[in-house]
Amino acid sequence: MALTLCDVGPRDGLQNEPDALEPAVRAELINKLAAAGLPRIEAVSFVRDDRIPQMAGAEEVVAEIERRDGVEYAGLVLNEQGFERLRATGLDRANVTLGATDTFNRRNGNASLVEAKARVERILAEADRPTTATISVAFGCPFEGEVDPGGVAELASRFDGAEVVLADTIGVAVPRQVRELIARTRSAGFHGHNTRNTGYANALAALEAGAEVLDASIGGLGGCPYAPRASGNVATEDLVYLLEREGIPTGVDLDALIGISVWLEGIFGRKLEGQVYRAGAWP
Amino acid sequence: MALTLCDVGPRDGLQNEPDALEPAVRAELINKLAAAGLPRIEAVSFVRDDRIPQMAGAEEVVAEIERRDGVEYAGLVLNEQGFERLRATGLDRANVTLGATDTFNRRNGNASLVEAKARVERILAEADRPTTATISVAFGCPFEGEVDPGGVAELASRFDGAEVVLADTIGVAVPRQVRELIARTRSAGFHGHNTRNTGYANALAALEAGAEVLDASIGGLGGCPYAPRASGNVATEDLVYLLEREGIPTGVDLDALIGISVWLEGIFGRKLEGQVYRAGAWP
Repeated sequence: MALTLCDVGPRDGLQNEPDALEPAVRAELINKLAAAGLPRIEAVSFVRDDRIPQMAGAEEVVAEIERRDGVEYAGLVLNEQGFERLRATGLDRANVTLGATDTFNRRNGNASLVEAKARVERILAEADRPTTATISVAFGCPFEGEVDPGGVAELASRFDGAEVVLADTIGVAVPRQVRELIARTRSAGFHGHNTRNTGYANALAALEAGAEVLDASIGGLGGCPYAPRASGNVATEDLVYLLEREGIPTGVDLDALIGISVWLEGIFGRKLEGQVYRAGAWP
Repeated sequence: MALTLCDVGPRDGLQNEPDALEPAVRAELINKLAAAGLPRIEAVSFVRDDRIPQMAGAEEVVAEIERRDGVEYAGLVLNEQGFERLRATGLDRANVTLGATDTFNRRNGNASLVEAKARVERILAEADRPTTATISVAFGCPFEGEVDPGGVAELASRFDGAEVVLADTIGVAVPRQVRELIARTRSAGFHGHNTRNTGYANALAALEAGAEVLDASIGGLGGCPYAPRASGNVATEDLVYLLEREGIPTGVDLDALIGISVWLEGIFGRKLEGQVYRAGAWP
């Protein structure tokens, strides 16, 4: 099994931080992650600048990335306009996303589930580069509660050409559920949040079930828009610590990741959610 | 499999908090945990008051506990004097502890590993009530680094009459290691810290390997004396959330636990490490 860790900190992490960082600092973060050996980095999101100020200036960020061989730079897109912007920047991979439930799509993407599905299918059909289809709230929805696994499976089957990633967007999943849904949908990847401290066990469960792509966010950057006091994504360095000691090679330099989180702590002026950068690697 | 959750918050949690709580408040915490359905609570530690002020007044704490049927109240003891104090209070169970390494015992118990082992054996041999033997730093030692599993197995085999619990005192273990060492030693229990975000996955691994007792601390109270900025034990409510949703009944009322963590947050005036009490139960 070839494991691909994708650091979504510059996108999912920063997007949920109260303070917006300048494009130059965001590019510096991406360059540091690439230097640490991350095989994939979700660098930006192509959304309207006024809707998510933390993600404003995606093109500026990409222009300042020092491209490194062997690193795949990805961007998030919600619609055709976003995909066109991504194509113009020359990013390697498009991560096209929608929610697993109707209400989530209406609230976040201004579309019904049927419309969102058709939109993703159109983008994937015309894409001229590798694509990921991320299904948000696949394990639970802040608006609809429990999500029917059958519906997620039906959705995943529509995105055959793409790499499918199932996202536990609000951090409610447990390992059994992750194992079952990854196996049932034959999904390639898992995007986990540690909102209720299940994120790391879930990541291992996803690998057991056949996933080969795991998303994580440096320092555990980010949060949860549906639970203001909650933490966000699993921390990349904590996941690397866990995987390496489990005997699963990541190709990522743990000490370099710890250095990046120490740097980010200085930038944000507060303790981050990641724990390994505070406790130290071991032994 | 009958799972027994033991809340060590009143002992391992409070012992590692900077602020010492009054015996009456500690007893109130214990009474709240019992009312929430915890089948076992580690209430106090019988150490010298001047050595660990947070644990001072163990007898006062026990005197204020409102004993509840079906709840086992335990105390930690390091030596014969501690066991005599525990016996006088009438607590149900003695948790006798030592470290897996020579240096840890010398630094923490003023004894060599050989002496500590003999001391535990003497106490267990003469005990007139149920006993647990907790082997600290069984998965890694702050002074000696990696710990030989063979040494832990030899140690565990000496404590046949007692329930053996393996402790990941500094939070360095990963699930594979927990699974292997619990299975090899046929230990009854696992005491995990979440210092590097592996604690919840480790708890599940311990159950898979046959453990029937899991320690946790309400709110994730506590810390790590060897890593000042690190977090401590796994949080009881987060573990209950995980187990219940995995389909493993705990008999504990999650909402009641969340209420206790909210109460504790008010007492300490700071955010606790537990995440479920902040994010909310689900669905």
